Amino acid sequence: MTTTIAPLADTAAPLSPEALVEQLARDGRAAQRVLARLSDAEKAAALRAAAAALRRAEGDILAANARDIAAGEEKGLSAALLDRLRLDPARLAGIADAVDQVAALPDPVGEVLSASERPNGLKLSRVRIPIGLIGIIYESRPNVTADAAALCLRSGNAVLLRGGSEALNSNRAIRAAFAEGLESVGLPPAAIQLVPTQDRAVVGAMLTAAGLIDMIVPRGGKSLVARVQADARVPVLAHLDGICHTYVHAAADAEMARQVTLNAKMRRTGICGAMETLLLDTQFPASETVIASLIDAGCELRGDARAQALDPRVRPAASEDWDTEYLDAVLSVAVVDGVEAALEHIAAHSSHHTDAIVTDDAETADRFLSEVDSAIVMVNASSQFADGGEFGLGAEIGIATGRLHARGPVALEGLTTYKWQVRGAGQTRP
Amino acid sequence: MTTTIAPLADTAAPLSPEALVEQLARDGRAAQRVLARLSDAEKAAALRAAAAALRRAEGDILAANARDIAAGEEKGLSAALLDRLRLDPARLAGIADAVDQVAALPDPVGEVLSASERPNGLKLSRVRIPIGLIGIIYESRPNVTADAAALCLRSGNAVLLRGGSEALNSNRAIRAAFAEGLESVGLPPAAIQLVPTQDRAVVGAMLTAAGLIDMIVPRGGKSLVARVQADARVPVLAHLDGICHTYVHAAADAEMARQVTLNAKMRRTGICGAMETLLLDTQFPASETVIASLIDAGCELRGDARAQALDPRVRPAASEDWDTEYLDAVLSVAVVDGVEAALEHIAAHSSHHTDAIVTDDAETADRFLSEVDSAIVMVNASSQFADGGEFGLGAEIGIATGRLHARGPVALEGLTTYKWQVRGAGQTRP
Repeated sequence: MTTTIAPLADTAAPLSPEALVEQLARDGRAAQRVLARLSDAEKAAALRAAAAALRRAEGDILAANARDIAAGEEKGLSAALLDRLRLDPARLAGIADAVDQVAALPDPVGEVLSASERPNGLKLSRVRIPIGLIGIIYESRPNVTADAAALCLRSGNAVLLRGGSEALNSNRAIRAAFAEGLESVGLPPAAIQLVPTQDRAVVGAMLTAAGLIDMIVPRGGKSLVARVQADARVPVLAHLDGICHTYVHAAADAEMARQVTLNAKMRRTGICGAMETLLLDTQFPASETVIASLIDAGCELRGDARAQALDPRVRPAASEDWDTEYLDAVLSVAVVDGVEAALEHIAAHSSHHTDAIVTDDAETADRFLSEVDSAIVMVNASSQFADGGEFGLGAEIGIATGRLHARGPVALEGLTTYKWQVRGAGQTRP
Repeated sequence: MTTTIAPLADTAAPLSPEALVEQLARDGRAAQRVLARLSDAEKAAALRAAAAALRRAEGDILAANARDIAAGEEKGLSAALLDRLRLDPARLAGIADAVDQVAALPDPVGEVLSASERPNGLKLSRVRIPIGLIGIIYESRPNVTADAAALCLRSGNAVLLRGGSEALNSNRAIRAAFAEGLESVGLPPAAIQLVPTQDRAVVGAMLTAAGLIDMIVPRGGKSLVARVQADARVPVLAHLDGICHTYVHAAADAEMARQVTLNAKMRRTGICGAMETLLLDTQFPASETVIASLIDAGCELRGDARAQALDPRVRPAASEDWDTEYLDAVLSVAVVDGVEAALEHIAAHSSHHTDAIVTDDAETADRFLSEVDSAIVMVNASSQFADGGEFGLGAEIGIATGRLHARGPVALEGLTTYKWQVRGAGQTRP
């Protein structure tokens, strides 16, 4: 049985999910061919026009958001979810300002990545270009609608958005304003499209739309990302887990270790760069202080036997604790016998997002940087710095934990690819 | 029902395909951690040792190959297939020489792709690293065993090879010699492994071994590549089709157009960079000469009505001809009304591998380079130059037609990724 869904406003018959995605993708790809030809200044101007349109549409957007909030309250959404969904004039101003900030970022497109001339006179260059049509699948936060669209457009990509049902009215209003801004500078509104239905089969159709959608970026909880990774036939730029470790080496400065670990865990416990496992070297002399500082700040510690022996407030860890992303004021802690054991623990349990060492020993630091196989490896710094803004990349579309194409914070460059341009004078191959 | 297969020599019970792949992958990943720490000189020395071992093992390898040839003749393999399978002293010397040539290529690992210092003093660098464990799934040519292993090892990757059943004895002998070369310089032989069974379920287990195999490179015919792309959960670096176009613009030099198109089609008809469709501008005055030159060289032309009108020997094209990779002395040919129509035809039918224009008009050339969405776009050159060696990259692992990670000829750089290294002095995030 094929699921059918409500028709688009301008079509007569209901479309299957596959036909709907194909239609949206064809419109988006046609719009992208226009974006691909724009100059840096034209793309920046389009984003400023979109930001202005978002500000002009404040009344419409907040009214649409109020309908989402009312429906969410009726459905009994949690207070936390309602808070993520809620817009107010300040939050909406922040969304528009963020679009202006993306406009001010440097254009990645057109950069010549390499150039050479062959002995036969062929001139080769590799030139950075947009990827094409990017699909974004996300959950409740309506700001993603404008943030993701801005990053895609800045890098010359069209975007097909599929947001959460709770935010449908808000997303529609934001998308309409953004598209109106593009139209005001003569660009096709199909450069930013929103899937017009909440039918979950459309997500499946997006994930298998190879050749129509060039890359999918899932933004949301673990179950969303896992489903996308399992079902996708389209390349996915995703991060699943942030099981981040901090290893306090024997030669760590005691006060630095205390401050860095406290910040890595407790500054914000809900972000993917938050430390989830602390590894204390058996030769590090101030482990009790580090542990006490975390517990005193309100963190629950779950440790192995040697960690429990350091402080009676440390509870026993279960084996699954070493593979758990708490995203909360909870931390697993193990005592390890030297850097080799720390590297082994990290190799076995890290999600390859961000792992850090605290040490004053340069050789050990270099070894850790070299041997830990994670997107981001840090020495003497809080893992909470794992963020595109902190890395100077501007806004980020996400933090990738895969190994190919882009790793760590993914910003404009991660939304581009390249092509080879070859200029000849009639050369034929012998 | 779970398929079981013959046990490895050193295991007691038969392993399921998944368990076999997991065991091979774990051994390969452990070996890769050793490779990741090697210097440029150490990797080069290891490859020279492998080349020497291949030369020493000439007798064993040719004897194994003779068994494959005999079995193939008994099975009734085609003469073309037997020729691809057959090794002789000269071919084996070529395989060993190719390994030495890869040893001489520059090491891509360790290159600093970008470096910056943040206002808070954090020092960031993006450093090129190996991908990890690469799976190669290929068909009958035994030289792929050594070629692919050499490229993977040069870039610090371990490799898991799954070759065709026709070449199993040859592949085993080549792998054994290569591994012996590695062992002779103290490296783990598991850096190069060959799947020890021809059970097709093992291919399926490789394709879904996410987290164990980091990238799969299929090398072979279209049905192999299509199966890999359809079933893989592991990232795939693949090229499916090479439907390459050459557009002869109104302002093309007539003799250059004749020579370039003749070479693009007829130099070797069976390679992926061979021209499969010729687009002749209606304003180009020498179309008859170009067509006659191809037909006189033995090429069958299938054209639209206007192409047929240019030469009575042009047969009518069916609609599927525009989407066919002939890999033979057959060419589809259409007459188009200007560059816009040529770009539209290419957008509709190209496989995004290599497309070329012949023109003396610089503005049209730039437009073609910019707007054609293919991995390689050429001006005034034969599409048969689409090759890693011709691009100065050294040996290639394949030509990628996807959009992410690597496009066009993929050599050592395409077998690497990067990590972020962050050096601090105790910074915590405000």
